Amino acid sequence: MDLNNDPVDHIDEKDLGEHIHALVRRLYPICRSITGDGLRKTLRIINSYAALEIREVPSGSRAYDWQIPREWNVRDAYIRDSLGNRVVDFKKNNLHLMGYSVPVNKKAKREELLGHLHTMPEHPDWIPYRYSYYKDDWGFCLSDNALKALNEPEYDVYIDSTLENGHLSYGEAYFPGTSSDEILFSAHACHPSLCNDNLSGLAIAAYLARTIGSKKHRYSYRFLFLPTTIGPLAWLSRNEDKLSRIKHGLVLACLGDAGISTYQESRIGNADTDRAMVVALRDSGTPFNVRPFTPYGYDQRQYCSPGFNLPVGCIMRSPNGCYPEYHTSADNLDFVQPAPLADSFSKILATINVLENDYKYLNLRPKGEPQLGRRGLFDKAAELGLMWILNYSDGHHSLLDIAEISGHRFTFLKEGADALVETGLIKQIS
Amino acid sequence: MDLNNDPVDHIDEKDLGEHIHALVRRLYPICRSITGDGLRKTLRIINSYAALEIREVPSGSRAYDWQIPREWNVRDAYIRDSLGNRVVDFKKNNLHLMGYSVPVNKKAKREELLGHLHTMPEHPDWIPYRYSYYKDDWGFCLSDNALKALNEPEYDVYIDSTLENGHLSYGEAYFPGTSSDEILFSAHACHPSLCNDNLSGLAIAAYLARTIGSKKHRYSYRFLFLPTTIGPLAWLSRNEDKLSRIKHGLVLACLGDAGISTYQESRIGNADTDRAMVVALRDSGTPFNVRPFTPYGYDQRQYCSPGFNLPVGCIMRSPNGCYPEYHTSADNLDFVQPAPLADSFSKILATINVLENDYKYLNLRPKGEPQLGRRGLFDKAAELGLMWILNYSDGHHSLLDIAEISGHRFTFLKEGADALVETGLIKQIS
Amino acid sequence: MDLNNDPVDHIDEKDLGEHIHALVRRLYPICRSITGDGLRKTLRIINSYAALEIREVPSGSRAYDWQIPREWNVRDAYIRDSLGNRVVDFKKNNLHLMGYSVPVNKKAKREELLGHLHTMPEHPDWIPYRYSYYKDDWGFCLSDNALKALNEPEYDVYIDSTLENGHLSYGEAYFPGTSSDEILFSAHACHPSLCNDNLSGLAIAAYLARTIGSKKHRYSYRFLFLPTTIGPLAWLSRNEDKLSRIKHGLVLACLGDAGISTYQESRIGNADTDRAMVVALRDSGTPFNVRPFTPYGYDQRQYCSPGFNLPVGCIMRSPNGCYPEYHTSADNLDFVQPAPLADSFSKILATINVLENDYKYLNLRPKGEPQLGRRGLFDKAAELGLMWILNYSDGHHSLLDIAEISGHRFTFLKEGADALVETGLIKQIS
Repeated sequence: MDLNNDPVDHIDEKDLGEHIHALVRRLYPICRSITGDGLRKTLRIINSYAALEIREVPSGSRAYDWQIPREWNVRDAYIRDSLGNRVVDFKKNNLHLMGYSVPVNKKAKREELLGHLHTMPEHPDWIPYRYSYYKDDWGFCLSDNALKALNEPEYDVYIDSTLENGHLSYGEAYFPGTSSDEILFSAHACHPSLCNDNLSGLAIAAYLARTIGSKKHRYSYRFLFLPTTIGPLAWLSRNEDKLSRIKHGLVLACLGDAGISTYQESRIGNADTDRAMVVALRDSGTPFNVRPFTPYGYDQRQYCSPGFNLPVGCIMRSPNGCYPEYHTSADNLDFVQPAPLADSFSKILATINVLENDYKYLNLRPKGEPQLGRRGLFDKAAELGLMWILNYSDGHHSLLDIAEISGHRFTFLKEGADALVETGLIKQIS
Repeated sequence: MDLNNDPVDHIDEKDLGEHIHALVRRLYPICRSITGDGLRKTLRIINSYAALEIREVPSGSRAYDWQIPREWNVRDAYIRDSLGNRVVDFKKNNLHLMGYSVPVNKKAKREELLGHLHTMPEHPDWIPYRYSYYKDDWGFCLSDNALKALNEPEYDVYIDSTLENGHLSYGEAYFPGTSSDEILFSAHACHPSLCNDNLSGLAIAAYLARTIGSKKHRYSYRFLFLPTTIGPLAWLSRNEDKLSRIKHGLVLACLGDAGISTYQESRIGNADTDRAMVVALRDSGTPFNVRPFTPYGYDQRQYCSPGFNLPVGCIMRSPNGCYPEYHTSADNLDFVQPAPLADSFSKILATINVLENDYKYLNLRPKGEPQLGRRGLFDKAAELGLMWILNYSDGHHSLLDIAEISGHRFTFLKEGADALVETGLIKQIS
Repeated sequence: MDLNNDPVDHIDEKDLGEHIHALVRRLYPICRSITGDGLRKTLRIINSYAALEIREVPSGSRAYDWQIPREWNVRDAYIRDSLGNRVVDFKKNNLHLMGYSVPVNKKAKREELLGHLHTMPEHPDWIPYRYSYYKDDWGFCLSDNALKALNEPEYDVYIDSTLENGHLSYGEAYFPGTSSDEILFSAHACHPSLCNDNLSGLAIAAYLARTIGSKKHRYSYRFLFLPTTIGPLAWLSRNEDKLSRIKHGLVLACLGDAGISTYQESRIGNADTDRAMVVALRDSGTPFNVRPFTPYGYDQRQYCSPGFNLPVGCIMRSPNGCYPEYHTSADNLDFVQPAPLADSFSKILATINVLENDYKYLNLRPKGEPQLGRRGLFDKAAELGLMWILNYSDGHHSLLDIAEISGHRFTFLKEGADALVETGLIKQIS
């Protein structure tokens, strides 16, 4: 498989960012949470890009130390003033309602109401994102400017939500390869109208799944679209028999903002997954950050818990908590752009390409240099790093090792290795 | 044991530096050397702070490649001019007499006398510190300005010293803990009126012994107050059966000057001792230096000789030879101050605290994160590094490891580990 | 052996650079190539400095993946204009003729001729160096200014060369030591009138061989003077039984220019060879570069191929390709100078000195420090690093290890070790 070419069938590569952004736009208005119909609707849309199994886990089921919560759905929610104006309205922006708010229908004194309102004084026009998944509560989020206008002594508070036994939904796509060894991609699908975190990750995962599904490949691929924390725990607890197959994994999040790429290594650190991602980023020729594992952040927290310790890293652009728009209404359709979405997609695909093509070769003429001239390879020797491949194809070093040692681009080395295999100077051994 | 609180019974922590400085002042006038009554008197004073065994090793005894020297005592020593004025007088400052000077009572021509006088022309007001332990000689040390005033053709030279078979004295305090594993503290007690080197180390060791002696602790603690080089050799040669119990050790010297803390690692390097000290220094939030082992310096030279190779580091502020006042009369009661003495004390106590509390824990819910919220730990998770503790309590990493990996303060991690043990999420395994 | 003193019999050290430069001057006019009489003449001259075996390998013989080429010799070669002037003349500078040019004797139209001419427009006065060893072709090299003057429509082209079965010649000198373990020196002898690359390497190798041949030494030494690539391959393929004896090796090239010393490590990296060279460079007190192995450059490419992986580094000043004069007529007798030639020689000799004297010692008084004072060593302790030697002579560390750990000059440590052996405090164990 050479995934660097023709990444997505029927889509011109230069239009890819626009296509991914279109999917972000389509998903943006939906009110998602860790359960509920918004999450289901999101999965059904993604299913139209890459065939998913949509799984439903009943409320109350165990997932290790956790229990699947009740399912939350909302029809309407608002704060209304004495003139009947909806001064805060869930229908205008689903961020206005704190996630998992319990039903409410009452008059509330201004003072009581203030205890349930969340704003960001440092960004007075932005609405913050808040939730209370595991503690019964209710609340509204609004701009600090809107808060300042709430001067009446009493307001109608109305939340038409349900918190009932139901299901946690997640989507799963599996593409078998020639090997049962797996590469896992995981994207959290529970955030409401927030684009970078994580419609960017969902949309890129959808297009990756569509690409992988249309190709032959060595590895088997698994894509998970699930609510954060409880989603991976539900999946892990039901799939322990498959975990030993996971050789590499990436959590996809915050992939559409203008920042440079940031890779957080797996807990293992320097796993082949980590090294492949770093080589792909290096080969891109653009700046990037690499940072070590921490047990904070996205769902790598579960995959990299000590009971699993899977080789799962996390690829982002600006990391969670490191940009002011994070978890606010400013993480909107302008904040993510086609160009960085396409760039993130291509770097992940380049990483897949490294992993798919990372073989060890054996130099069959290991004593001295072979004579490249009479094989017509002399002119390609420098660019394709042929001398590096020949010298380090000693049974110990893989192409990824050679990419690291030599500084040569992985794709050039692959081309070089193919040429050397063709002449019989090296052979693939694993 | 939580040694961070109430380090010394009945002494308010903010007064501790003053107390330590008071002990330095009490010891300052005494004429110490590697043997003799000044050394004995010093040990007796320390004994009033922390109960010591005072040991006496006879002159002529073997200590590996060395022999315990004759005991040196001085009653009086001076240089007197023709008018009967004592122009250099041991009774004014014991630094005036070169250590281990043999008895002299004669008239000396100025030229002969000059061959026995030591000054520091680059600091013309200071008296240097000199000794000749293992070669019979005599000498006086004086300021270069005083030397310039010695214009008479002849002087009376009088040294009323004795060099006779006697004993080498040292003090030893041992505080058994629940384990026979030991932490060793060693401070050299042989320097005369020099405050930083090493009344600072002696006084801090005395207060440490007093603190340890009043607490329960896991480790057993041994404090040695002894003359440099020959003292540790004497102790080592008589206690080889105990050496395997020494798991950590610190040589204490130069701990009262205004410089930042300097830690010299043990010969092993990266021993737990070294790592604990560095984490304690890091956690202090103030600048510090760490430097690798060298076979020069204080008594770590003996503890870290290849035949022992004990995990013994050396904690100082400005290291020996790195400040101009070193081994001169300017290393006086002004040069050491209560604040740095208290600061050094607290950093050593913090190191003890790390070692006492450095356990391994096992995460009992290792698959995914446990749900901290329903255990009331969610709010403490960040500050106390709970996710780090849970993630790395995998049977391999101790709390010190986690402090290094996470960058979290050790004391916070200990508090976090206690909270997690209490909830049953982790258990201590070693 | 102390090679630091009296490096070359009967030559004053301060004159050594002049002597080496004189040999460069003597070899400069000869037309060398990878075979032929110029190479043979060069070897015979070197033989007058250090006795060589001159080996002849027949054309057509195998050397692993290669075949010894036909032997090339030239009597004359020129381009002549219509007035009979030799406008390009091999007899004026052997760089004018492309190496291994086939015989030609014809009139050539200007356009045809241009296809066979090589110049360096960026240095219009310099003649480039070109060759075509393994592809039948002909060509002339000239200054770009000379090219611009070639305005006639037709020229006589005459190359009186022969390409016939014959031999590849190389020189070998072997100096047995008390051990059969070998140190290999290899210098390529195939370049025509180019001084830095590589008459500098040849001349220094000749003087090294002369020096080694006149001394007793622990290691056995082998010097190879041979054409690049095919030369080492020929030697390796005929001497596989000897390869296991090669414990260290250096390729010598580009050693006479004004740049600082550059050492390229062996493929093994951090081999004792590499460490000894780096310590010798460090001890020189002058700036230097160290760079890791790459499979490009000089004949280390063959010695360090994966089938051999010998501990062979490459010592240069300005590396190949990193100075504008490289492979041009500007690499002439002015470009290499006596002072850098002597400096390179002395650094290689210092490296040999490290390897010859790198023993492990065992401290026979390992418990504490021995008393140096009564052995008269106290005053030498600091400069000769005696404490370092005593502390690290634990059966694991060699003198080279101690030089690295302590930062002390190797020669001082050797002197210190000798003094300690003499007093019986340490003994040599390997």
